[in-house]
Amino acid sequence: MPLLYHYPLCPHSRFVRLILAEYGVAAELIEERPFDRRPEFLALDPAGRTPVFVDDDGAIVTSGVIADYLDEAYGDGRGPHRLLPTEKLARIETRRLVDWFNVKFFEEVSGWLVTEKVYKRFSPQGGAPDMDLVRVARANIRHHMRYIGYLTSHRNWLAGDRLSYADFAAAAHLSCVDYVGDAPWDEDEAAKHWYQRIKSRPAFRPLLADRAPGMTPGPVYALLDF
Amino acid sequence: MPLLYHYPLCPHSRFVRLILAEYGVAAELIEERPFDRRPEFLALDPAGRTPVFVDDDGAIVTSGVIADYLDEAYGDGRGPHRLLPTEKLARIETRRLVDWFNVKFFEEVSGWLVTEKVYKRFSPQGGAPDMDLVRVARANIRHHMRYIGYLTSHRNWLAGDRLSYADFAAAAHLSCVDYVGDAPWDEDEAAKHWYQRIKSRPAFRPLLADRAPGMTPGPVYALLDF
Repeated sequence: MPLLYHYPLCPHSRFVRLILAEYGVAAELIEERPFDRRPEFLALDPAGRTPVFVDDDGAIVTSGVIADYLDEAYGDGRGPHRLLPTEKLARIETRRLVDWFNVKFFEEVSGWLVTEKVYKRFSPQGGAPDMDLVRVARANIRHHMRYIGYLTSHRNWLAGDRLSYADFAAAAHLSCVDYVGDAPWDEDEAAKHWYQRIKSRPAFRPLLADRAPGMTPGPVYALLDF
Repeated sequence: MPLLYHYPLCPHSRFVRLILAEYGVAAELIEERPFDRRPEFLALDPAGRTPVFVDDDGAIVTSGVIADYLDEAYGDGRGPHRLLPTEKLARIETRRLVDWFNVKFFEEVSGWLVTEKVYKRFSPQGGAPDMDLVRVARANIRHHMRYIGYLTSHRNWLAGDRLSYADFAAAAHLSCVDYVGDAPWDEDEAAKHWYQRIKSRPAFRPLLADRAPGMTPGPVYALLDF
């Protein structure tokens, strides 16, 4: 069985967990604390980042490379249910939005919130969260919520008419922000409705059951109707 | 003819310029100063980052998405000369290294050097370079040079026996670092030989002719034999 080294509140790990669940790929989950910089983990990926996926083809690193690999391995033959569309324009738009959330949203919002509120708490080199960074992330996320709302009020799903990697990338990051209580659900009604829809999928259930030791999730984290 | 909005010393733009040249795709180059945040440019890409590629399929943003698009549009039928290999393990390794240079090397080295030494000089909100960041980047690059040396002394090119996107991603970032005079060519002999080989390709010539106003490139920047 393939292995996934992941950290429960790492948004990139969550993106891959959602893909595996949607594609029905059974994988053994191994919790890895990337901030421990365990030598055996660094041997799998010199960059020491979660997630790492290991199967008969070896260790595959970074969520983007894993996502491409999984789509090529398991997406074929799924027709309209393929999560990285094969139709050219839909493919470009899906990839654009995956990059938007995995890079831009992570740099402006989820990376800071997870680092300051979660990683610093559990890392040996941790410390108190830098509240200036937390405040900037909380301001930035409002623009992103409106962007999600704008896209999903013009389309059925984020990248178009069909559910795609774009939705799972966005939801993976947003779910971590929601765990730490910083998702502003009052900002945009369409964004909230989109998140309710994706949160109701069976693939999402294991994420909603995740708990970080000593950290209670935000008030609506596990609620499907909020 | 397709358009490429690029900035001459943006490593992500250079990655795409090299791909276009290698695949023989003629495109009109339009110089864009991303730090000016020109409204017409933000309309193409709300994130406001170079490069942006525009053809009949519309505007395509981020170097990774453009690279995937170009390989799918122009790589087919090139057999062993395809720059994103179709063979599974070579494909994974190429993508891993493209991410390594476009994300990790950029975060640890080229992003800081280009921002501090180039963007700050020309941006209206600029200022003096933060020399602490420059020093950290100069220390970090030595590890990367040894990693390039390690890979290319075990393989013909970075990701394996054949030239691939991995080589062009690495060379794109390294060429910007070399422009600002911070590439330590004494660090690793194999890394230097690999760079000499890729630098000699016709696709590289236009990059070696780039000049930023008032900034003389590093001493060996345009030399093929250094």
